[in-house]
Amino acid sequence: MPACLLSASLCMPRVQVAIEPWSAGSGIPEAKCVLNGINITQILSPRTVLCKVVGVIFALASGLPVGKEGPMIHAGAAIGANVAIGPRCIKFLSEFRNDRDKRDFAAMGTAAGVASAFRTPIGGVLFAIEEGASYWNSELTWRAFTAACVAIVTVYLLRSRGLSLLTDPLDSHDMFIFGQFSSATDTDFYFWELIIFTAMGVLGGLMGVCFIAANKQLNVWRRARLGSSRVLRLAELVCLVTLVSVVAWFLPLAAGRCRPVPTHVEGWSESGVRVLNSLVRHNCPAGHYNELASLFLVEPDQAIKALFHLGNGTLSWHAPALFFVAYFALECLTPGAWVCSGVFIPTLLSGAALGRCTGQLLGRNPRTYSIMGAGSLLGGVMRMLISLTVIITEASGWVLFVLPLMVVFLAARSAGNHFNDGMNDTQILARRIPFLQHQPPESIRQQNVRVHQIMTQEVKCLQPVETVERVYRTLRSCDHNCFPVIDGESRPFRRRYTLRSVLLGTILRKTLLVLLARRRFAPPSADDASMPRPLPVLAWGDLEGRYPKYPRMEHLDLSEEDGRCLIDLAAYVQVGPHSMNEHASAHRAYEMFRTLGLRHLTVVNHFNEVVGIISRENLLPCNLQQPKPKVGSPLPRRRWRASGGGGSSGGGGGDGASSPQKRSSRRRERSIEKMLQRATGMHKGA
Amino acid sequence: MPACLLSASLCMPRVQVAIEPWSAGSGIPEAKCVLNGINITQILSPRTVLCKVVGVIFALASGLPVGKEGPMIHAGAAIGANVAIGPRCIKFLSEFRNDRDKRDFAAMGTAAGVASAFRTPIGGVLFAIEEGASYWNSELTWRAFTAACVAIVTVYLLRSRGLSLLTDPLDSHDMFIFGQFSSATDTDFYFWELIIFTAMGVLGGLMGVCFIAANKQLNVWRRARLGSSRVLRLAELVCLVTLVSVVAWFLPLAAGRCRPVPTHVEGWSESGVRVLNSLVRHNCPAGHYNELASLFLVEPDQAIKALFHLGNGTLSWHAPALFFVAYFALECLTPGAWVCSGVFIPTLLSGAALGRCTGQLLGRNPRTYSIMGAGSLLGGVMRMLISLTVIITEASGWVLFVLPLMVVFLAARSAGNHFNDGMNDTQILARRIPFLQHQPPESIRQQNVRVHQIMTQEVKCLQPVETVERVYRTLRSCDHNCFPVIDGESRPFRRRYTLRSVLLGTILRKTLLVLLARRRFAPPSADDASMPRPLPVLAWGDLEGRYPKYPRMEHLDLSEEDGRCLIDLAAYVQVGPHSMNEHASAHRAYEMFRTLGLRHLTVVNHFNEVVGIISRENLLPCNLQQPKPKVGSPLPRRRWRASGGGGSSGGGGGDGASSPQKRSSRRRERSIEKMLQRATGMHKGA
Repeated sequence: MPACLLSASLCMPRVQVAIEPWSAGSGIPEAKCVLNGINITQILSPRTVLCKVVGVIFALASGLPVGKEGPMIHAGAAIGANVAIGPRCIKFLSEFRNDRDKRDFAAMGTAAGVASAFRTPIGGVLFAIEEGASYWNSELTWRAFTAACVAIVTVYLLRSRGLSLLTDPLDSHDMFIFGQFSSATDTDFYFWELIIFTAMGVLGGLMGVCFIAANKQLNVWRRARLGSSRVLRLAELVCLVTLVSVVAWFLPLAAGRCRPVPTHVEGWSESGVRVLNSLVRHNCPAGHYNELASLFLVEPDQAIKALFHLGNGTLSWHAPALFFVAYFALECLTPGAWVCSGVFIPTLLSGAALGRCTGQLLGRNPRTYSIMGAGSLLGGVMRMLISLTVIITEASGWVLFVLPLMVVFLAARSAGNHFNDGMNDTQILARRIPFLQHQPPESIRQQNVRVHQIMTQEVKCLQPVETVERVYRTLRSCDHNCFPVIDGESRPFRRRYTLRSVLLGTILRKTLLVLLARRRFAPPSADDASMPRPLPVLAWGDLEGRYPKYPRMEHLDLSEEDGRCLIDLAAYVQVGPHSMNEHASAHRAYEMFRTLGLRHLTVVNHFNEVVGIISRENLLPCNLQQPKPKVGSPLPRRRWRASGGGGSSGGGGGDGASSPQKRSSRRRERSIEKMLQRATGMHKGA
Repeated sequence: MPACLLSASLCMPRVQVAIEPWSAGSGIPEAKCVLNGINITQILSPRTVLCKVVGVIFALASGLPVGKEGPMIHAGAAIGANVAIGPRCIKFLSEFRNDRDKRDFAAMGTAAGVASAFRTPIGGVLFAIEEGASYWNSELTWRAFTAACVAIVTVYLLRSRGLSLLTDPLDSHDMFIFGQFSSATDTDFYFWELIIFTAMGVLGGLMGVCFIAANKQLNVWRRARLGSSRVLRLAELVCLVTLVSVVAWFLPLAAGRCRPVPTHVEGWSESGVRVLNSLVRHNCPAGHYNELASLFLVEPDQAIKALFHLGNGTLSWHAPALFFVAYFALECLTPGAWVCSGVFIPTLLSGAALGRCTGQLLGRNPRTYSIMGAGSLLGGVMRMLISLTVIITEASGWVLFVLPLMVVFLAARSAGNHFNDGMNDTQILARRIPFLQHQPPESIRQQNVRVHQIMTQEVKCLQPVETVERVYRTLRSCDHNCFPVIDGESRPFRRRYTLRSVLLGTILRKTLLVLLARRRFAPPSADDASMPRPLPVLAWGDLEGRYPKYPRMEHLDLSEEDGRCLIDLAAYVQVGPHSMNEHASAHRAYEMFRTLGLRHLTVVNHFNEVVGIISRENLLPCNLQQPKPKVGSPLPRRRWRASGGGGSSGGGGGDGASSPQKRSSRRRERSIEKMLQRATGMHKGA
C-alpha cells in the first residue's frame, strides 16, 4: 500500500505544476483575487483548470494531506469565467465578453464549485459572497444562487447512478459529505458548554495562527533554497510523500490499538453504522480494527465521518490525539509544495481529531465535540464566518449546530486576527498580488493622508490627436494600462497651473493597440494639418470583439512612414473618467477602488489638470509605509503639519517658493492656497 | 371569543399609528431603505420603535392576519441605529455618531431582529445582506454575525425560564418556530417531484403578483377615499377586525368537520404529537376537534405547525383549501390599513394551506408539500432567495429541504418578477422614497444618457468667505443639503467658461447651521476687508457632537448687524468631493450613488467649474421618463443624435449659439467641443 501511494504520487502532480505554475496551491486565494477584480489571465485559463483537475486527482491518490475543495473552487471560477468569454459564435454569450461580466461569471462558478465540492448549495453562494463581497449585488446573488442550484441538482443526478431517482426517495445520507446527524442524542450539548466551545474556538484560532506562521516561514525557506528548480521541487515532493506514507503505514503498526468491530449497534445513528464498514483492519486479527489505521489509511472524508459519528467506546482518546499531532504536522508541510492542494478538508480532519479527543477527555459527547473541534481549527485557518457555519451545518444536516458553530467561529476568528491574517490573505500577500482588503492599510486610516501623497507623478499623457510614432513610443516606454488624454501639451508637473493640460478622458492600452493593429491612422488632411484624413470610426464590436486577446506590441508592423501619420483618439476616449482631486483623502480613493472595482484613477488639481495617477499598486500596504510628505501640493510645506485649533484664518503670507508669474490664474491659485491652508488646519487639528 | 378579539383590536393599534405614522405597515420596506442609505429620521426614532412594538402586540391580539416579524425587523434596525447615536456620555459610542455607522448599526440590528423573530441567526445575517447589499462589506458581515449570535443566545436564555439550561440539554423543538422535522419519513420526496415543486413555485409567484397588485389598488383607493382622516381609518379598521372575527368564528361552525383527536401516534414525529395539544374543539363533542377551527382560532405559528406536522388522515383536503381561500382574501385587505403588520407569517400560513391541500390531492407527503407551498407563496410575495431558503431551513431544522426550496424560490421569483416588483419594493415606490435599486432605470441603461441630461442646473453655490446674510438667505431659499463651495462669483450657467467658479469643495447644510448657531462669524479684520477677524476653528467634535440633532433655521437668532459679519467656511469644506464630468454617462453616476452610498454629486465641466448637481431624486425612474435633450452641454444640438459611423472627424464648424468671446479659454473650449463631437459620434454610432 505505501508503495502504491508512492508511485501514484510521483507520476503526475508535479508534471501538471510544471506545465502551469498557477495550478499549484489551493486555488482559493486565486478565486478570491478574481472576485476582488484582479485580472490575471493565467489564473482562469482553461489550461490551468485542466492541470488543476488532473493534478488534484493524483495529489489525492498520493495520500498527501490535501483536500479537493480548493481546486474545485478554483476550477469552478475558471469554468465560469471561460463560459463568459466562450466561443464567439454563440451570439447569446457575446455580450458577456468584458471584465465585469467575466468576474460575475467567475463568482457564479465559485458558488457552483463550492456547492459541488461540499454538496452545500447555500454554503457555495455564501462563500462567494463572503470572499467577493467587494462588488456584490442582488443581481449576482440570484445568479450565483441559480448556479449553485444547478450544480447541486447535477451532483444529485450523477450520484444517483441511473433512474432509481424516479422510484426511490433520495438517499439523504449520501448527500451529506460529513454524514447526516439525525438524532438529538447524537448531538446533545448543554447551554453552558458554549463556554467550552468558546475556549476551543480561541485555541483553534491560536493553532491557526501557528499553522499560518509556520507555513509562511517554510515557504520563505522554499523560495530561498529550492527556488523554482524542478529537480529540487520534485525531490521535496518525493520526500514529502515518502514521509506521509511511512507515517501513515507504520504509526498505526507501532501505536494503533486493536479493537473488535462493534456488533451491538442498536441506538446508533445510521451514519454511525455506515462508518463501521470503513474501519481498517491493518495488522489486527479478523473482526477487529486498528484505531489509528482507520483514521490514517482511509480517504480524509471517511476519516472525518469516523470521527464525527463513531459512538462511545469505539475510539480511545489517545488515537485521535496521536492522529492529530502527526497529521497536523504533516499538513503544515504541504501548502506551498508543488502540488495542487486545498487545506480545507485536512484542517477539518485534524480539528475533528482534536475535538474528539477533548470531548472524550472531558467526558462529554465526543460527536458534538469533534464537530466543534473541526470548526475551531478551520475557523482559525480560514477566518471566515458565515459561509463556514453554513457549509458545516449543511454538510452535517443538523441545524442545531448553528449556534455553537457561530460561537466557535467568532472566537477563532477574533483570536486569530489578533495575530496575523488568514491563510488565504497570507498567501495573497506572499504572491504580491495587488489585492485590496476591505479595510484600508493602517497608514492611510491613521494619518489623514491625501491623494497626492500616494499617487504616481509620472503620468504618460496623450493628446486627442497624436502621431503614430508618439503613441507607439508611449506604449513601448511603460507598461501602464491607462493613459489620460489631455488638452494641450503635457508639461512637467512642477509648472502646473498653466491651464494647458485639462483632463479630457482616458484611453486604455488595449484600445491603442487595436487602433494601431487595425491601422486606424492617416496622413494629415488637406484643410487642417493638425487632423488626420477622416476615417470611419471602429465600432465597439471591432474594438472589443477579440476580448480578452488583444494585439501585442511585438506583432505590430509599422513602417517609418506610418510613424508620421496621425491617429485620432477622440472617438475612443472615455469621456469624464473617474478622477479625484489631489487634496481629497486617500481613504476615499481607496474606497472608490474597492467598491467600484477601479484599476486606475486619474488625479487632478483644482483646474482639472492631470497631476498624477493612482493604480492598485499605490494602495498596497507595502507601498504605503511612508507616504510622501508633500508632492505637487500648492500648500506651503511648513503649514502642512501645523496643528490647527487656533488661528486657522491666517493671512495669505508664506506661500510656496515658486517664482512670481503675471498670469491671471496666479491670483486664483493664491486664494485657493489660502483656503486650503485653512481647510488643512482644521482637518489636522480637529 | 370574537368579542374579546374585537375589543382587544379596537383599543390600541390605531392610537399608536396616530402618534407616529411611520410605525404603520410591516417595517421591512423601512429597514430596506435605511440599509440603502436613505436617512429619514423618523423611521428610526425611539418613538417609532415603541409605537411599533406596542402596536404589533395589539394587532396580533386582535386576530388580524398579521405577523410580528416585520415590526421586529424594523424595531431591530431602529434599536441598532439608536445604539449608534446613544447617550453622549458613553465615550465608546461617540465615534459611531455619524450616518455611515448608524446605517451599519441598523444593519446589525436588522440581522438581530430577524434572528430573534424566526430564531434563525444565519437567516438574519442573510436577510440583512440580501436587502442591504448595496453597501455590504466583510467587516459588516462579522458584525452582523456577532449581533445575530448574541440575539439568539439571548432568546435561548429568555426561553429557558431559569437555570434548567445548566442541567438539561437544550429543548431542540422549542428552537424551531415551525417545529422540528426530524425524520426522513416526515419529509421524503422523490427527485422527479422537483418538477412539481417548480410548478408550485410558478403558481406561487403568480399568486404573489395578484396579491401585490390587489393590495396596491386597494391602497390607492384607501388614499383617495379615506385619506388620512382618523375617523374613516378607524372605521375601516373596525370593519376589518369585525370581518376577520366573524369569518374566523362562523366559518368553522358552518363548514368545519369534526374529527376525533388521534390516539395512536406511534411513528409520528415529536412535533406532530406536540401539535395535537393545540387542536381546537370549538363546536365538536369531547375528544374531537374542528378541522377549520384548529387553523383559524389559534395563533398563526400554531396553525403553521399544524399544517406542517399533522400526519395523514388528520385533515381532509378541503379544510386547508377553504382556509386558504378565506385567509388569503383577508390577508390581501390588511397591508395598508392603519395597523402594525407584517405579511411574512400570514403569507407562509396561507401558502402552507395551499401546499398541504395540493399534496393531499396528489396523494403525496402532505408535510413536504405544505413546506413547499409556504415557500412558493412567500417567494412570490417577497421575491428574496437565499435568506428565505435559509430562514425556512433553519426554522424547520431539516437541511434536505434546501434543494427543493431553492427550486421553489427561483421559480416563484422568476415568475413574479416578470409581472411586477416584490411587496417591499412596491411599498417603497408607493411611498416615493428615493430608493435606488441595483439596476438603474431602463431609461438610463438604454439610451446612453449623459450626466448633464439628468442633473439639476440650479445649484446654490457659496464662496469660501461669505456674509452671514447671504448664507442665511441661501439656506432659507432652498432645502438643499449640500452646497458646492466655489472660487469666485457664482454666475448664471449660460455664461460658463469664464474660469471663475472652480469647484473647491462642498459644505453641508448642517455644518452651516451649526456655524450660524455657534456664531462663528466676525466683522472684517483690520488688514484685509475680505476676511473676517480670526476665530478659533470649531473642532469636529463640536460640529458633529449633536448628531443627529442639528440647530434648526427657526431657532437661529441673528440680528441685522450679524448679517453683515463674515463667515469663513474654508476650514469646514470637504476638499475634493466626489464630482463628475457633465459628459460622463449617467449610468456611471448611478453606480457611484448606489455603491458609495452618495446623497449628492457635484457635476462639473472640463475646467472643474460647477454646472449642476445630482441628488437621489434625479435618479429615480419617475423623474427619468424623459431625460432633457441637451442642457449645459457644449455639444451642438444637431449632432447629439447624429448617427456616427462615417466621418466622425467633422471640422469645428457649427458649435453652440453662445456669443463669440475673445477670451483665451474660448479656443480651448472649441477644441474640446470638437473632440467631444467626435467622441459622441462614436458612442452613439458604434
